[in-house]
Amino acid sequence: MDVVRLEDFEVLARAQMDGPAFDYYAGGAADELTLGENIAAFQRRRLRPRVLVDVSSVAINTQILGKLASFPVGLAPAALQRLAHDQGEVAAARAAADAGIIYALSTLSSCSVEEVGAAGGRLWFQLYVHKDRSVSRDLVQRAEAAGYEAIVLTVDLPVTGYRERELRGTFAVDPADYGNLRMPSMGDATLAGVVAFLNDQSLTWNDIAWVRSLSSLPLVIKGIMRGDDARLAVEHGAAGLVVSNHGGRQLDRTQASIDALEEIVASVDGAAEVYLDGGVRRGADVAIAIALGATAVFVGRPYLYALAAGGEEGVRKAIDILRAELLVTMALLGAPAIGALTRDMVI
Amino acid sequence: MDVVRLEDFEVLARAQMDGPAFDYYAGGAADELTLGENIAAFQRRRLRPRVLVDVSSVAINTQILGKLASFPVGLAPAALQRLAHDQGEVAAARAAADAGIIYALSTLSSCSVEEVGAAGGRLWFQLYVHKDRSVSRDLVQRAEAAGYEAIVLTVDLPVTGYRERELRGTFAVDPADYGNLRMPSMGDATLAGVVAFLNDQSLTWNDIAWVRSLSSLPLVIKGIMRGDDARLAVEHGAAGLVVSNHGGRQLDRTQASIDALEEIVASVDGAAEVYLDGGVRRGADVAIAIALGATAVFVGRPYLYALAAGGEEGVRKAIDILRAELLVTMALLGAPAIGALTRDMVI
Amino acid sequence: MDVVRLEDFEVLARAQMDGPAFDYYAGGAADELTLGENIAAFQRRRLRPRVLVDVSSVAINTQILGKLASFPVGLAPAALQRLAHDQGEVAAARAAADAGIIYALSTLSSCSVEEVGAAGGRLWFQLYVHKDRSVSRDLVQRAEAAGYEAIVLTVDLPVTGYRERELRGTFAVDPADYGNLRMPSMGDATLAGVVAFLNDQSLTWNDIAWVRSLSSLPLVIKGIMRGDDARLAVEHGAAGLVVSNHGGRQLDRTQASIDALEEIVASVDGAAEVYLDGGVRRGADVAIAIALGATAVFVGRPYLYALAAGGEEGVRKAIDILRAELLVTMALLGAPAIGALTRDMVI
Amino acid sequence: MDVVRLEDFEVLARAQMDGPAFDYYAGGAADELTLGENIAAFQRRRLRPRVLVDVSSVAINTQILGKLASFPVGLAPAALQRLAHDQGEVAAARAAADAGIIYALSTLSSCSVEEVGAAGGRLWFQLYVHKDRSVSRDLVQRAEAAGYEAIVLTVDLPVTGYRERELRGTFAVDPADYGNLRMPSMGDATLAGVVAFLNDQSLTWNDIAWVRSLSSLPLVIKGIMRGDDARLAVEHGAAGLVVSNHGGRQLDRTQASIDALEEIVASVDGAAEVYLDGGVRRGADVAIAIALGATAVFVGRPYLYALAAGGEEGVRKAIDILRAELLVTMALLGAPAIGALTRDMVI
Repeated sequence: MDVVRLEDFEVLARAQMDGPAFDYYAGGAADELTLGENIAAFQRRRLRPRVLVDVSSVAINTQILGKLASFPVGLAPAALQRLAHDQGEVAAARAAADAGIIYALSTLSSCSVEEVGAAGGRLWFQLYVHKDRSVSRDLVQRAEAAGYEAIVLTVDLPVTGYRERELRGTFAVDPADYGNLRMPSMGDATLAGVVAFLNDQSLTWNDIAWVRSLSSLPLVIKGIMRGDDARLAVEHGAAGLVVSNHGGRQLDRTQASIDALEEIVASVDGAAEVYLDGGVRRGADVAIAIALGATAVFVGRPYLYALAAGGEEGVRKAIDILRAELLVTMALLGAPAIGALTRDMVI
Repeated sequence: MDVVRLEDFEVLARAQMDGPAFDYYAGGAADELTLGENIAAFQRRRLRPRVLVDVSSVAINTQILGKLASFPVGLAPAALQRLAHDQGEVAAARAAADAGIIYALSTLSSCSVEEVGAAGGRLWFQLYVHKDRSVSRDLVQRAEAAGYEAIVLTVDLPVTGYRERELRGTFAVDPADYGNLRMPSMGDATLAGVVAFLNDQSLTWNDIAWVRSLSSLPLVIKGIMRGDDARLAVEHGAAGLVVSNHGGRQLDRTQASIDALEEIVASVDGAAEVYLDGGVRRGADVAIAIALGATAVFVGRPYLYALAAGGEEGVRKAIDILRAELLVTMALLGAPAIGALTRDMVI
Repeated sequence: MDVVRLEDFEVLARAQMDGPAFDYYAGGAADELTLGENIAAFQRRRLRPRVLVDVSSVAINTQILGKLASFPVGLAPAALQRLAHDQGEVAAARAAADAGIIYALSTLSSCSVEEVGAAGGRLWFQLYVHKDRSVSRDLVQRAEAAGYEAIVLTVDLPVTGYRERELRGTFAVDPADYGNLRMPSMGDATLAGVVAFLNDQSLTWNDIAWVRSLSSLPLVIKGIMRGDDARLAVEHGAAGLVVSNHGGRQLDRTQASIDALEEIVASVDGAAEVYLDGGVRRGADVAIAIALGATAVFVGRPYLYALAAGGEEGVRKAIDILRAELLVTMALLGAPAIGALTRDMVI
Repeated sequence: MDVVRLEDFEVLARAQMDGPAFDYYAGGAADELTLGENIAAFQRRRLRPRVLVDVSSVAINTQILGKLASFPVGLAPAALQRLAHDQGEVAAARAAADAGIIYALSTLSSCSVEEVGAAGGRLWFQLYVHKDRSVSRDLVQRAEAAGYEAIVLTVDLPVTGYRERELRGTFAVDPADYGNLRMPSMGDATLAGVVAFLNDQSLTWNDIAWVRSLSSLPLVIKGIMRGDDARLAVEHGAAGLVVSNHGGRQLDRTQASIDALEEIVASVDGAAEVYLDGGVRRGADVAIAIALGATAVFVGRPYLYALAAGGEEGVRKAIDILRAELLVTMALLGAPAIGALTRDMVI
């Protein structure tokens, strides 16, 4: 595989995957303005390197929710990874485990909580709260039993975004292909249909206590884009939160997630960990997010494309590239450790 | 009809309509900078969604001039709709009536005040003041008799804009095709010719009292782009005003209407309702305008293209799309009602 | 001739003229950034129209140096107009005279001071100060004798700009083709060569008194781009000055002339008239410059292209278009007279 | 050779050179954003010319580290110039010597310190500090013996940038082709491999005293992008420093060097000379950098392309073009000497 940057995998995946499935991964909501903005907002920032710092050793390991990660990047939850590769989430989780980074499994995964749990490594479980709350309770308890370390509650999908590639297309999945769900037979169903059937649109901050009560695992709230909501997350006991616009798939025209990060970091003020996803394509993006106050970042589409292009090996390669880029970036920034990535290094 | 966004109708209309008639709808003044800017200015704005708000029910109905509209979008006045479809304004008005939204009939319509009046629904009548004031008086009185609810006085067309597509082309219409006017036979006439023949270029604020005296209907002044003019409109008794640059068809290089909105809302300070047209193509645009202080917005070209593409059914579909997009946008913004669209949600 | 905007003439001229001659007219210095910026800077500005102003009559006449001009646009000095058309400057000057606007003749014209003087109308004479001062004295005295009303001293051409189209090309002219100059026979010569032979590169503010002493005509200094230089021009007795970067032909990377205007207007503070050239292509550009404090503007390339495309008739048409656009612009701005174009109308 | 601007040489070089070698010269790190930004940041700046200044003589000579340079441009250190032309660095150095400007020889040159020393002129020697410090000591002492006037310590290359053109390609060089180094035979090696083998990644400010102790030559530190680092350079005895991002080849997303210049000039406050490289393509760029406080600028790729296109003669031509452009720029700016290039001339 002749790839040197994450975006190379996209070309390979496009050639490899069915059109509608590729579009399902690649697409965003409406005009896809936020989709593009997530990347552009990183690229608008400028780095200010320090020189003559000893970088003979650059340490990129870090603590996330009190445990070691080999570097501050995780694989974001994403639905239906068997669209990319036969082995689906299991392959991606294995690559993450080997690399010593976090893998977050989607509720809407192809493989089950238990299959992925068997891959080992640091696993988080992403949760939607369903109208039938017992479904959500079961999922959380299965995740805890399978050794997952945190629950990631996604809060930006009460309804599905206005995704035109899907509205125009024929993309639909047999509900039986969702590894964690037992749904009524409804023939092939669009994602929007599944979400409308399952997700509880009445969920509010008052329900967070209930979610926390389902397990002893720390709660991460994903999909926060404002400082006031971040404060509410802290007040409701979140151990972490993910600044995210769902990769531009939900509400088009939101800010880039990196543009929302600093307000949220300031608002949280150390009371929880702050992660970010959306637009991370380069080691420099990782460094920028850390310098602006994130504890870690998550990547989504890039590893899905790598999974499509090369299965577990592809994901491993994607992680290797991001690690290599981060190491070079930090050496050239004069930052020999994660803690040395400081605010003054980014304009 | 395989359309998922309003702009899809434009493609269909272009295939359907005569070139000069399509250009008459599509074109703007001079370099068409304002035409493009109306859309770009919406797209530059960024949304700031709230999460964990109960959006199991999203109410988009609203009050406009004291009466219910099913959602805060109306169909803007536009001339000569039989260019798009045989049934002209009647078809569009019927779709609006069924949807529970306002339809504003142009003075320069193909169908008459009375034909459109028979379509029912909430109707407004758009007025130009003519050199022969009795013509304008008659029109207003006919509109009031036919059940129209407001007079929309357009003030940004003392002369026709410098529309090059028309200057280059051969677009001209037999004056007999204007459903409301009785004009001397002059052979086919350009719009600029008709306007020059009819419109009173000496109209000033002092004439507003006379316009109001013609009926008991509330007066809406359309074509305001400055705070000081908005204040004058209020002082002269306008119940509402439309922030509008005539869709970029009159004075090129004006600001986008959305860029003028906030100054005008501040200047009016609640003393009249403020509407906006120009560049509304998405549910997100509607939400942005409301959040910035508009009571409602009007769309023009999109429904004309829908009319050309599919007649009454096409317009119905266009309204459905905009409603669906607005619902998704509000659910994802965490705004379960029109009043929950607040200023802090837009950057 | 099917033209509706000035830029249409450029297409016609390109088809009509020899490549090198067209390039001589069209080109700018170095990367031609200022060439493009002159136009872009006008297009970035936004207009704020007033409504309900009586525009049944729009008066565009104005006073320039104490005499009437039918509208505030003049034809800028430009060399060698027989490259465009057999009748050269005489044709352009006749069109200007008929239209009641100023024509400024270049020192480096194809036709002589006297030939153009016979065309009548309001004529200004553009002067370079030559190393042999008697040449300049003769030219000024001939201009005064021939009825010219002002001397326009160009100060931004001590050397020729780095014009790459000419450096790459073969454009050169027999010195005998310059209608006003008697030069030694040197075979065909580039403009840069002629300028290097003639122009006095040591000219300073101290020489302005001498230039003024050559005639009783008012002095206009052309090529000012800074407020401090504008103040110096006033102190040295200039009756007017032209904010100009020589149409982007001299120093690339200067500001657009419209971007320099306001600082200069403020600095001059009414002590002289301020004109502008560079980038004027539309009636809206004229209105913008006036609203920002210019007394009048000059157009260059557009009328040269019109001259190439249609001789005297072409120039007449170009003037007609600009006049028509200005009238529409002012009517739609709610400005019934030149004095009503106020600063608040432009953002 | 029909070239009128430096960028013309790039076209010729691309046709002349092997693809991988051309890419080695042309490429930058990662997305090559800084590579493009270096040029764009110059082009965004605007010049403010003064008129009526005597520019009959324009003096561009200047003092650099206490000695005369015929104009404030030097040739930047660049590796392996025999990739461009058989005569390599010797040809370029001869052209610089004839022109009276500085030539800086790279440690990684094709020709040796002594071969280039024989070319005469003003020579500086660029140094990397190697893991085996005796290698660096020898190089410095050889440079001093060969008449070089300064040591330029490059501090922004502890590791090689993430250069994708090289990662994708096959570009590698036999270590024996480096004129100054005696390396173990390792077969063809990538630059990144050579750098990893040689460069001391643990170098800090504490090592600067040792570097200075190696010779009596003044020390210039190259690769400074921040005011605080510039201050440190002064405190550690640097006589000069080069604001540089290594031509966009090391850390992508750094600011353009011209965007970092003013902060650094302010921080140094006259205690050392400040030079700049990166993006200089035009005489106007030179003038801008000087006006913003640089003592001189260096060009890199342009002279390498000229060397490829025409050997010593090509480099001579490149220098001539830059000198000619600078002369025209200064004449048109109203700056008859280097000291007349003042801050107010640039926006």
